[in-house]
Amino acid sequence: MNDTSDLVAELKKRGAQKVALQFPEGLKRRAAEYATALKTAGFDVIVSGDPCYGACDLAVDTLALADVLIHFGHAPVDDLQNVIFEPYHVGFDVTVLKHALPLLKGKTICLVTTVQHVHLVPEMAAFLQLQGIDTRIGAGSTRTPFRGQVLGCSFAAAKVPGADEILFVGTGLFHAIGIAIATRKRVIALDPLTGIAQDVNGDTLLRRRFAVIEKARNAKTIGIILSTKSGQQRMALAQHLSSLSPNATIVTLREVSPDELLNLGFACYVNTACPRLAYDDQVRFPVPVLSPQEFEIVCGVRTWDDYAIDEIP
Amino acid sequence: MNDTSDLVAELKKRGAQKVALQFPEGLKRRAAEYATALKTAGFDVIVSGDPCYGACDLAVDTLALADVLIHFGHAPVDDLQNVIFEPYHVGFDVTVLKHALPLLKGKTICLVTTVQHVHLVPEMAAFLQLQGIDTRIGAGSTRTPFRGQVLGCSFAAAKVPGADEILFVGTGLFHAIGIAIATRKRVIALDPLTGIAQDVNGDTLLRRRFAVIEKARNAKTIGIILSTKSGQQRMALAQHLSSLSPNATIVTLREVSPDELLNLGFACYVNTACPRLAYDDQVRFPVPVLSPQEFEIVCGVRTWDDYAIDEIP
Repeated sequence: MNDTSDLVAELKKRGAQKVALQFPEGLKRRAAEYATALKTAGFDVIVSGDPCYGACDLAVDTLALADVLIHFGHAPVDDLQNVIFEPYHVGFDVTVLKHALPLLKGKTICLVTTVQHVHLVPEMAAFLQLQGIDTRIGAGSTRTPFRGQVLGCSFAAAKVPGADEILFVGTGLFHAIGIAIATRKRVIALDPLTGIAQDVNGDTLLRRRFAVIEKARNAKTIGIILSTKSGQQRMALAQHLSSLSPNATIVTLREVSPDELLNLGFACYVNTACPRLAYDDQVRFPVPVLSPQEFEIVCGVRTWDDYAIDEIP
Repeated sequence: MNDTSDLVAELKKRGAQKVALQFPEGLKRRAAEYATALKTAGFDVIVSGDPCYGACDLAVDTLALADVLIHFGHAPVDDLQNVIFEPYHVGFDVTVLKHALPLLKGKTICLVTTVQHVHLVPEMAAFLQLQGIDTRIGAGSTRTPFRGQVLGCSFAAAKVPGADEILFVGTGLFHAIGIAIATRKRVIALDPLTGIAQDVNGDTLLRRRFAVIEKARNAKTIGIILSTKSGQQRMALAQHLSSLSPNATIVTLREVSPDELLNLGFACYVNTACPRLAYDDQVRFPVPVLSPQEFEIVCGVRTWDDYAIDEIP
């Protein structure tokens, strides 16, 4: 557990008495100790226990029972009031970036990372500059407030004009693949914890998505998934997609689970919630789950050449 | 699908344009056809896809996107505005009650059933009276608006003074066991679809619960589960229970799942959400999940002799 004295000071400054705590899945086990520390400091504490995968998924219902919500581990994606975003930094020795150097070919690279490493962006950039690499850091979007920060649903910081290629520093390949499709540039992914660097492209994902699109073409009933999470609810998009087919019905879902998709019984779904769900979890789903752009292709209002990866603006 | 003309008339009377639909798990597959029927009748339709196990679990977030919510299959447990409760009756030939007759010993019996059969209560009572059995029908509670109706969390209709024993007509044994513990009377359960009648008592459940209570005694961290569902949120109870132990923390949960209990990592939980969760699902949970009354026993403020089954008033 991190020291809570700054948090306690911030809560006192805000005049908060009832405090709600929300943790992503990987930090949930800390809930009991944070609750005890804040109760000892004199606050009433309530923990949100629901699944949480991002700042797009704020515990609004638990905040309704408290004065302030402390959301751990993510940066804000919107400007909801009475939420304190408490970072959870994961550090590493930036010289690990040396493993990416042999793969970098461009003169100018754009450096991006995820929120838990974003505090190291200046140090990483300085290391790369020292190696003679012209390093650019993008400004991000409203969903990615930190310079150089990307999310699975927002690659704005990777879209720096003039960069020849992009270096993504972080865990997993989803962000890097998304960046490759979104920017159509060369992307190198470096896992800073293992030191493994690799050249990433979107070809495999695009081939898989093409197969899913073909499978969805004959669906007689289509559920347009509309999230009820704070930062994932895209009603205008859901209504637009629903208007493309008489067989489409808008379906709200908090957690998009294989069980519920099966129980609802639609032959195909279109996902307007967290974009990663369609790309990452298709293997878990009983029927095709398309992205908005993929459904436009099925409905003939977008061509395959205009394929785009789904981002939330 | 039932005829929707009455529903359409009701929606028009209310001046509704945007209509939200919510189905229990067993009726969810009907969502697409009901949506199509109401769209054809000129309404904008949105379906709530989240899990739903009762009228205590209204799709408040989906209703916020519509003028009216049609909730299928359950009777109201509270007086939320703009909700139409659309019954889903399951009929049977009431002469099936003859299978229960050999087990009835009392002079006066109290007849109860669940919401899907409640329309048959007068006919069932008439059948029993014809057999010479003095049959009483209880008035229920605010959560059980129909005479003779019980819920897994409300056995008020079974508490008829002067009844020697209770005849429960319905599927499964949970209601009958709950009634036996709540009333301390003899209970006969009749499944009207199979014709199987049996004498039910709470002994096995109580033995199992005693073991769970003993297992929970040494827990160093205790999560007091507070539901965020419309008809399951018992904050005053959660606060009372939390005040009984310095190791207790209130945790909000929408769906009480084994995964989330594991991720949160408390050594024991106390369930103030749907009472059935603790009694029915303990086998799925990684640690002891106590009822409110069981936690009072652990904390020494209630004796085992005063064991009571949890009901929501």
